[in-house]
Amino acid sequence: MNKASKIMIYTPSEAELYADLIRKDGYTSVCSASTPEEAEEKLQDTEILMQWKFPLHLLEKPAGKSVKWIQSLGAGVDDLMRSTSIPEGVTISRVVDQFGGPMSEYVFAQLLYVYQDIARSQVAQKKKSWQPFVTELLQGKTIGIAGLGSIGKEAIRKARAFNMKVYGLSYSGKEAHLVDRHYGPDEWMDFVKDLDILLLILPLTEQTRHIVNRDVLMAMKPTACLVNIGRGHLVAEDELIDVLRTGHLRAAILDVFQQEPLSETSPLWELPNVYITPHMSGPSTKERLGQYLLSNLTRYQNGDALLGVVNRKAGY
Amino acid sequence: MNKASKIMIYTPSEAELYADLIRKDGYTSVCSASTPEEAEEKLQDTEILMQWKFPLHLLEKPAGKSVKWIQSLGAGVDDLMRSTSIPEGVTISRVVDQFGGPMSEYVFAQLLYVYQDIARSQVAQKKKSWQPFVTELLQGKTIGIAGLGSIGKEAIRKARAFNMKVYGLSYSGKEAHLVDRHYGPDEWMDFVKDLDILLLILPLTEQTRHIVNRDVLMAMKPTACLVNIGRGHLVAEDELIDVLRTGHLRAAILDVFQQEPLSETSPLWELPNVYITPHMSGPSTKERLGQYLLSNLTRYQNGDALLGVVNRKAGY
Repeated sequence: MNKASKIMIYTPSEAELYADLIRKDGYTSVCSASTPEEAEEKLQDTEILMQWKFPLHLLEKPAGKSVKWIQSLGAGVDDLMRSTSIPEGVTISRVVDQFGGPMSEYVFAQLLYVYQDIARSQVAQKKKSWQPFVTELLQGKTIGIAGLGSIGKEAIRKARAFNMKVYGLSYSGKEAHLVDRHYGPDEWMDFVKDLDILLLILPLTEQTRHIVNRDVLMAMKPTACLVNIGRGHLVAEDELIDVLRTGHLRAAILDVFQQEPLSETSPLWELPNVYITPHMSGPSTKERLGQYLLSNLTRYQNGDALLGVVNRKAGY
Repeated sequence: MNKASKIMIYTPSEAELYADLIRKDGYTSVCSASTPEEAEEKLQDTEILMQWKFPLHLLEKPAGKSVKWIQSLGAGVDDLMRSTSIPEGVTISRVVDQFGGPMSEYVFAQLLYVYQDIARSQVAQKKKSWQPFVTELLQGKTIGIAGLGSIGKEAIRKARAFNMKVYGLSYSGKEAHLVDRHYGPDEWMDFVKDLDILLLILPLTEQTRHIVNRDVLMAMKPTACLVNIGRGHLVAEDELIDVLRTGHLRAAILDVFQQEPLSETSPLWELPNVYITPHMSGPSTKERLGQYLLSNLTRYQNGDALLGVVNRKAGY
């Protein structure tokens, strides 16, 4: 590759913004597209595809055959893994080490909101009512983190600062030393049974799809709290709804859902103790994502190892 | 002292609970009182007074003359320092190292509530509205902590886990090495000018009374946030109200007030971006406070140095 190799930026919004940024760094053949039609029209000769929600079937067409590297603009690549349109020789990379800070801030904001019962303080303030109460603390509680990548590691750091016990479950086991107890993929029931909080940050793969089902949820303490910032399909959503309706679980903090946007007819919106946000826990600021893309482009150009290369066998 | 020395527990509520706990540890002369009348009636021969809001003028009466040690049940002792009824020879101690965890959880809960705009997410959920937005992060922000005792140190630990810059102001300077920049008591204006968040945990003394006045507040960035979990009188409350009314400061998170309970007529209740809680950020659970009292009793009995002895000259 050289700076004249053709790069396409595809994302439903702001593609041109990133294209501009890359052009300013000296790349001379950069195009942007925001719709499938535009993508098809401009795809010819593209070597590098930086994309979010790209219409992957286009890669089977003659115009798509020159793509050698697909850089996802997000952390999760389950959509790319499910696709059968990406030839084996194409390198796939994702964004890593960008979301740990923001996503763990989201997690602790929501947990503290629940445990400190800030809603109660807000209501009291509206009534000008002075009624102190004792809040529950994170200190001393046990958080179980499923997924010990760069996001999990930031969550561990914060949990330690809150004097929590930290258990972890991961498929590779390579970060086992960071947690007080480590569990493998066959040990979900043991993993969850003593947790006060279960935090899901796993990638979605064939192995993790609906891994948190009724049995796992019922094995959790009735007072435990579920937090999902990974992917909606990690949880069997219908079974979660059933379990919540029985009064099991203290809270479910959900940023991701099986179908997004979450349908207006989903009972989750109105179930007590369910806290819903619209897949926003891991925002990429344009500046940081732009820097990340440029840095990976430089690596590609120099033949250095890319950041966040996906192991297509493992699925993440 | 021996286990037969007379101990009085005085607190408007739950005095008998602590008295019981101490009796169970083998102390044979323990009484409790919850009203000034009861205190006066039972005070005779008391050597150790463990108290919260005790009617201090009783110490000037003959029945109060045997008191040698006053253990406060809280962290702040400004009421004891203001009193002229406590003879110089009486040892005063306060509770230390108990509140850092809970109070710093309060601080981060409230800050994250503001910066993550959880109120907005709550409103959106009620409307079943899926509208992602980018939240502001603590990461990269600068927090200035005024007061670097055991509570300040826990706040520092958490701020570090959130990847914040940490400045500190303290009177002794002995914890200066824990912060990125340290300021002394004559450097308030320099201290506050670059802060995103000013956290007040100072004890109330003649030196710190109304130290955060209009000038200090106006020297802060208009987008900065004030958090007071120390004492209400650290802040000139009327001046804070004036400053907030001009739109200066992004938020004021207040757990303590000049007069408590906060009067229903205070404008603070209704000012936008003011978050009020009723002096509850540092709750002592009965268990932990009980253990602390027993541990200090053992030290007293053995002639060991007490925890939390107050330097009456410094005022804390």
